[in-house]
Amino acid sequence: MTAYSELAGHFGRIAALSNAVGILQWDSDVMMPKGAAETRAESMALLHVLRHGLVTEPRIGDWLARAEDDATLGAWEKANLREIRRIWTVETALPAALVEASSKAVSACEMRWRQARADSDFAGLLPFLSEVLNLQRQIGQAKGEKLGLPAYDALLNDYEPGGSAARIDALFDDLAAFLPGFTREVMEVQARRPALEPLEGPFPAETQRALGLRLMAALGYDFERGRLDISTHPFCGGADNDVRITTRYDEGDFTKALMGVLHETGHALYEQGRPQAYLNQPVGAARGMSVHESQSLLMEMQACRSRPFLAFATPLMRDAFAGSGPAWDSEAMWRRYTRVEPGFIRVDADEVTYPAHIILRYRLEKALIADAMPLAELPAAWNEGMASLLGVAVPNDRLGCLQDIHWPSGGWGYFPTYSLGAMTAAQLFDAACRAEPGILPGIGRGDFAPLVGWLRANIHGKGSLLSTDALLTEATGRPLDASVFKAHLRRRYLEEV
Amino acid sequence: MTAYSELAGHFGRIAALSNAVGILQWDSDVMMPKGAAETRAESMALLHVLRHGLVTEPRIGDWLARAEDDATLGAWEKANLREIRRIWTVETALPAALVEASSKAVSACEMRWRQARADSDFAGLLPFLSEVLNLQRQIGQAKGEKLGLPAYDALLNDYEPGGSAARIDALFDDLAAFLPGFTREVMEVQARRPALEPLEGPFPAETQRALGLRLMAALGYDFERGRLDISTHPFCGGADNDVRITTRYDEGDFTKALMGVLHETGHALYEQGRPQAYLNQPVGAARGMSVHESQSLLMEMQACRSRPFLAFATPLMRDAFAGSGPAWDSEAMWRRYTRVEPGFIRVDADEVTYPAHIILRYRLEKALIADAMPLAELPAAWNEGMASLLGVAVPNDRLGCLQDIHWPSGGWGYFPTYSLGAMTAAQLFDAACRAEPGILPGIGRGDFAPLVGWLRANIHGKGSLLSTDALLTEATGRPLDASVFKAHLRRRYLEEV
Repeated sequence: MTAYSELAGHFGRIAALSNAVGILQWDSDVMMPKGAAETRAESMALLHVLRHGLVTEPRIGDWLARAEDDATLGAWEKANLREIRRIWTVETALPAALVEASSKAVSACEMRWRQARADSDFAGLLPFLSEVLNLQRQIGQAKGEKLGLPAYDALLNDYEPGGSAARIDALFDDLAAFLPGFTREVMEVQARRPALEPLEGPFPAETQRALGLRLMAALGYDFERGRLDISTHPFCGGADNDVRITTRYDEGDFTKALMGVLHETGHALYEQGRPQAYLNQPVGAARGMSVHESQSLLMEMQACRSRPFLAFATPLMRDAFAGSGPAWDSEAMWRRYTRVEPGFIRVDADEVTYPAHIILRYRLEKALIADAMPLAELPAAWNEGMASLLGVAVPNDRLGCLQDIHWPSGGWGYFPTYSLGAMTAAQLFDAACRAEPGILPGIGRGDFAPLVGWLRANIHGKGSLLSTDALLTEATGRPLDASVFKAHLRRRYLEEV
Repeated sequence: MTAYSELAGHFGRIAALSNAVGILQWDSDVMMPKGAAETRAESMALLHVLRHGLVTEPRIGDWLARAEDDATLGAWEKANLREIRRIWTVETALPAALVEASSKAVSACEMRWRQARADSDFAGLLPFLSEVLNLQRQIGQAKGEKLGLPAYDALLNDYEPGGSAARIDALFDDLAAFLPGFTREVMEVQARRPALEPLEGPFPAETQRALGLRLMAALGYDFERGRLDISTHPFCGGADNDVRITTRYDEGDFTKALMGVLHETGHALYEQGRPQAYLNQPVGAARGMSVHESQSLLMEMQACRSRPFLAFATPLMRDAFAGSGPAWDSEAMWRRYTRVEPGFIRVDADEVTYPAHIILRYRLEKALIADAMPLAELPAAWNEGMASLLGVAVPNDRLGCLQDIHWPSGGWGYFPTYSLGAMTAAQLFDAACRAEPGILPGIGRGDFAPLVGWLRANIHGKGSLLSTDALLTEATGRPLDASVFKAHLRRRYLEEV
């Protein structure tokens, strides 16, 4: 057996283990009775230990060294070796004591955070969050030494391989200069339009589910390799060939769950479209979180909040819920789904104001990891940032710097991928529509095959063959910049009707 | 750390892995989309390999030797060592090549069996089943050498630790002498009663589910540590503190699913009642398959098909399905639920004729493992046995020796536990009612607390502390014999009303 085959076999077993973890995580969020939490945590911890053991086996280093000298390998195999070496380098970078300390600090901080958020009590969280931050800094430094990267970039690379703060700074500075003035303009245009009439419910969950399934099918979701279920926090998870999405239904407002399902379907189409021949290999994985988020936002923001899609989908909504009157007009639905409203909470933000939430978090976490700002100053810095980027006055930390679980749970370096994803989505959708004239008319009649066909060929089917930059350059002719996203926003939100 | 603590920690990790397998198996049967089958099979195979690796680690032998010399251990710890040694002995008994050959033969035979059953084609299955049997014989011999047991007893011990063919022969010969004549008497009594009127449906699945949940609650099922779902083949599975049962609904007949739910609830109460302090240790496991089956049959056959329970439950059924007329009378429901009808299919058999199906299978599999009968003669021997034990003429092998998956899937030595369970259930229920006079009146008003309290104290909470024999002797005053079961059958089926 060649060294490459040994590696492929070994990482196939790792994938089999990761797939087990994926289904158990889904079960924890969707099915598990609450009395099983502790037992489940033990199973998950054990599987993570077993997985870490498999990924850090010393013989991987020997196999890699031999396989990298193998002149017979093709492009996919070489890219697979590159990905395996990256994963192996990162996973072997951390001393076990640091992993354990971080895991304990995160558990304690997450638990404290739930109370601190409810009480708007940043001071109570501070010692816990400080411990997490301190350990994240050490983790970033340890990984950074192995990867030749600054600490923040090393953390970022867990979610966005190849990403760098220098690159993000340029993109986000561009957006940050554009958004505040643009948002004011949008609000003025919006203020000149008549008020939206309410959609009168109730909207039974079963009907919402049926409509969601109908639209998932229109987008091309493969129900033989996935499911739609309910969870408190919607997500796309599961395993290879078993890509499950979730939502939660509000019987007083169907619009959020419906668009949420379309968002998760975008993630799921990426997962279902990864290359079958390398599905259980690192090179067959999704390219990174910004590309992943681009796939959900391309479906949600670019395709499904567009006039053509809503002209197709609004009658289906009206029929499903027996709606009538001007609120159920497709233009009214488009205005509802493109409404802009600066607010305090990221997860409730619209397409225009969302990046401001992200830019703020990115700048703060970068400064904190670099030790360029004391953690105790976070609330003040947060509130200043919200005032200058969004023009809102944050009344308390519950609606401010305590709202997200990412930092308490050790997810430092994740935030920027949301807005990188939004920009990537705009650039990809623009290129797709130029390359394939059938895409926009298809969306207008609920036929996503032309769009998904283009995405399969240019994104989904490529897995991790290319770097994020190369993937985007091959698909759109150039690396990511903010211009197409800005043009999209201007076109959608400033065009008077 | 003492050798005992090392062992307990190690087997705690094995339990964490087994719990993961349990939930994934549940998911495969209840939730998994069909396109995920192959991916899931890879995950399951990997987890089984990892589990086998943990259970057969050589250091377990060293720990055992040292722990068995530890004079400070209490009864539970000593019993845990006994169970660990048994498991370790059995799992290390087989050469890897034999395990692999058996696994492959079983896969091939199971697949061939589905077609052979459909076609009633025993000749087509013969070479595949012959291979499985041959390997089972070798497995029985290899385990038997390590355990000091004959091959059949060694196979039986996987399901019924401490069980032996000599013991089962005595019990089953007693029953076999009793049942044919008794069954004829029952049929005569039954023939003198007026015919049962049909229950007019349909019976919506949602209503059946709600009623099932209501009765599960009455029996004492803990919904914080379990769920009720749907699967093609009903089962009780899941994990520690996460005991999930399933059923399947026929909208034309609610009676089967309802009693099936009560049967699985009996299994689940056992699992939920195992000792929390040893839940993840071998000594905390259920005692064996005959005791497990006794818990489902105690609930189903002894408690829930009784007149007192049906007097309580029939009005609930009537209300749920808006039934009316004499078919919904509780005496009619009791007659429906105690109807006897000799037939060809084991899983459709009633309480009286079920043991004949089991005795036949047991005698045949014992002869086959002992090479005392050529496999080619199985259909003829089967049909002869059905004629003499049940008085029915089997028309083809689909309704005969091809009906069960157990033999094709390598489950040799399992069948006797069904009827050992039925006898054990009768003996336990009889002892429980004598010891605790509140049990029968409780059942009559849907209050199972007195019964479950007795079972918790005498069976569930004992885990694998005692041998099956000792467990039953402590609970009922004597080891298992057929007399209480026969008395129960005479009382229930020959009493004229």
